[in-house]
Amino acid sequence: MQRISYPKKEQWASLSQRPIVEQAHLLQIVDQIFSEVKLHGDAAIHKFTKKYDKVELDAFMVSKAACITAEKNVSKELQAAIKLAKNNIETFHLAQQEEKKVIETSIGVTCWRESRAIEKVGIYIPGGSAPLFSTVLMLGIPALIAGCKEIILCTPPDRNGKVHPAILFTAHLLGIQSVAAVGGIQAIAAMTFGTTTLPKVDKLFGPGNQFVTAAKQRAFKNGIAIDMPAGPSEVLIIADETAVPAFVAADLLSQAEHGADSQVVVLSTSEKILNDVDKAIQDQLRLVPRQSIAAAALKNSLSIVFPTIEECIEFSNYYAPEHLILAIDDYHSYTHLVQHAGSVFLGNYSCESAGDYASGPNHTLPTNGFARSYSGVSVDSFIKKVTFQEISKTGLQEIGPSIELMAEAEQLFAHKNAVAIRLKNNL
Amino acid sequence: MQRISYPKKEQWASLSQRPIVEQAHLLQIVDQIFSEVKLHGDAAIHKFTKKYDKVELDAFMVSKAACITAEKNVSKELQAAIKLAKNNIETFHLAQQEEKKVIETSIGVTCWRESRAIEKVGIYIPGGSAPLFSTVLMLGIPALIAGCKEIILCTPPDRNGKVHPAILFTAHLLGIQSVAAVGGIQAIAAMTFGTTTLPKVDKLFGPGNQFVTAAKQRAFKNGIAIDMPAGPSEVLIIADETAVPAFVAADLLSQAEHGADSQVVVLSTSEKILNDVDKAIQDQLRLVPRQSIAAAALKNSLSIVFPTIEECIEFSNYYAPEHLILAIDDYHSYTHLVQHAGSVFLGNYSCESAGDYASGPNHTLPTNGFARSYSGVSVDSFIKKVTFQEISKTGLQEIGPSIELMAEAEQLFAHKNAVAIRLKNNL
Repeated sequence: MQRISYPKKEQWASLSQRPIVEQAHLLQIVDQIFSEVKLHGDAAIHKFTKKYDKVELDAFMVSKAACITAEKNVSKELQAAIKLAKNNIETFHLAQQEEKKVIETSIGVTCWRESRAIEKVGIYIPGGSAPLFSTVLMLGIPALIAGCKEIILCTPPDRNGKVHPAILFTAHLLGIQSVAAVGGIQAIAAMTFGTTTLPKVDKLFGPGNQFVTAAKQRAFKNGIAIDMPAGPSEVLIIADETAVPAFVAADLLSQAEHGADSQVVVLSTSEKILNDVDKAIQDQLRLVPRQSIAAAALKNSLSIVFPTIEECIEFSNYYAPEHLILAIDDYHSYTHLVQHAGSVFLGNYSCESAGDYASGPNHTLPTNGFARSYSGVSVDSFIKKVTFQEISKTGLQEIGPSIELMAEAEQLFAHKNAVAIRLKNNL
Repeated sequence: MQRISYPKKEQWASLSQRPIVEQAHLLQIVDQIFSEVKLHGDAAIHKFTKKYDKVELDAFMVSKAACITAEKNVSKELQAAIKLAKNNIETFHLAQQEEKKVIETSIGVTCWRESRAIEKVGIYIPGGSAPLFSTVLMLGIPALIAGCKEIILCTPPDRNGKVHPAILFTAHLLGIQSVAAVGGIQAIAAMTFGTTTLPKVDKLFGPGNQFVTAAKQRAFKNGIAIDMPAGPSEVLIIADETAVPAFVAADLLSQAEHGADSQVVVLSTSEKILNDVDKAIQDQLRLVPRQSIAAAALKNSLSIVFPTIEECIEFSNYYAPEHLILAIDDYHSYTHLVQHAGSVFLGNYSCESAGDYASGPNHTLPTNGFARSYSGVSVDSFIKKVTFQEISKTGLQEIGPSIELMAEAEQLFAHKNAVAIRLKNNL
């Protein structure tokens, strides 16, 4: 990790710089696959599945029988773990449902909002060597709580045309009916246009590599809503002298193992703590199976000394990390200062992996500085709020003259007339 | 209006078709202005203001003095109307603030969400002949309630370099400090990159013509969040035999006067009502100053007979209108059927112009079918929700073993170790 001491504010922009992902070369591939899927539907999916996943499938949709039998290939212990995580994630997300609040803004003018599920949602789950069944929980649970009518889960098949049993088990546990063994750009294209087998969706969710990310941007251009822009995962840890260096090191490494482009930052008021963290990283790194990935990520990573915890948080707000760990004493006195972060972990025992899997909050979070303007995924992401208003004749008498004046000033006379004709009327 | 009786479901897709806006030719202009503003900042803004607004300005920022003196050029009556609207919009939006709910998902695992304002927001207000000061209210009020630190309002100058006094008065009334006389693509570009005078913002809001819409899409590509994709405004009215044809006609016309591309649809179970609406439109149309615009919009508009109110609502959900008026008896029995709409108006006295100006709910709403996946603007649009979690040692003992199993199954061993090292530790 690169050590920086007491950086000046002029340096903050460059210290917060994320790696720039060049997408231009991807767009051509994305455009081509989108065009073919739009034109040839399922036939194009077959073609690209053969090309990229190296397998020919008779059918994309995973049968219900396969979802049920997947259980046999997931250990009882892992099943129990997934169920515990499901319960916690459900408990947390159930509390995000909003009650209807009816407001009388003027006499006879009653207004409220009602939540409505987005009808058709697509969930993309990366597959391959590491089957992200945890993301099935994180996206499936809020979708089901929201009441989405059609949830379609796409995930790439392996070389034998199969989907990992942990993904199928989790989908079945939640009650997700449609699982398709379709991955990559072709999966996103299929859910953008719809094919004979796969429906066009209203909104797309889920992580993915740079190809999937570029495909989701393209889907957005085609009018499909997306959860958020994506980028490499990142953690920023603020540690004071009460932090446990071995814990901090373990959290930094758990972020670093995601990929060579992972962003890992640690801030402290104590140079000693940072030195101890460095040592602990060296100790732990040799035990990490994805050692070369983690080491590559650490090479681009920062460890920075600041004079106060307040300044650490100020820098963190500037950086706007996806994950923020406050490994500091009396953290409750500082949470109000945190402005821009995806998810915040408090104290020595709130490790990021708890949030990644089982504590309850969502792990689909804004990266790449997007925590400045985006929330992580929640039930909100799967609903729209529709406003309702009910105005009585008295209500219109109350506010009508003001509407007439404003409409006239905006030179919208038919708007004015819609009020005038009602106020004149003796019904 | 084109009359259709009892259309089959196969026809619904074509009946719901919105006009396709060809953006390709705009993108070149947008790209050029974005490049120049990125490169030359304020100098480019001056250049394009001269080119498109036909005026040379010494300074873009409107002085506080000008905002204060604007009051003199707004009639007392209009001032009072704007204040009444402000109160209602504030009352409705204040109720959108969410209280913190702390959830214990497992013993020792405490999680919650906190709302944080998006720090820097840009509000675009179209200017020219019709100064949309109502949009200043609709975007400024939720931004201020959310607590956005920097609110920058951009609106094009007139030929004399001035901003319309009603816009300045409204901005000053709300307490918006930064008003810039910059319009069009160059305003969006300035808020995307930042210039010496104008800040780069985190999120962009506001309506605009096709140039502004294309520029906002471009800003999104550059990492700036936007409120929602835009399109021509639209209303769908469902009227039964208790509806007042003259009121329905007035509402259709108030939508039609927005532009020749406005979408206007009326559904009914009663052919007689539709005939009476047609007649009322003819009567009222000659009184509308924007007659040719309204007439052009009506030419593309639909009036459709369905056998039941339920089917009317089913079609409306398929269409997903920006504004939906239920001019029907016993509308409370039907609201639960409404799935996809931006804002719903109930009964004979809830006219769309009430919602456009003064009843309280927001008038910035999803058009073009985006009500399937987007909400209208609200306080939510100006905040992010940050999740917090606090896990005690007991809490980690409770959920830790499950996390370890799940991390291992996803082949993320450093994630597993972040838990293991804490559970092993005797601190």
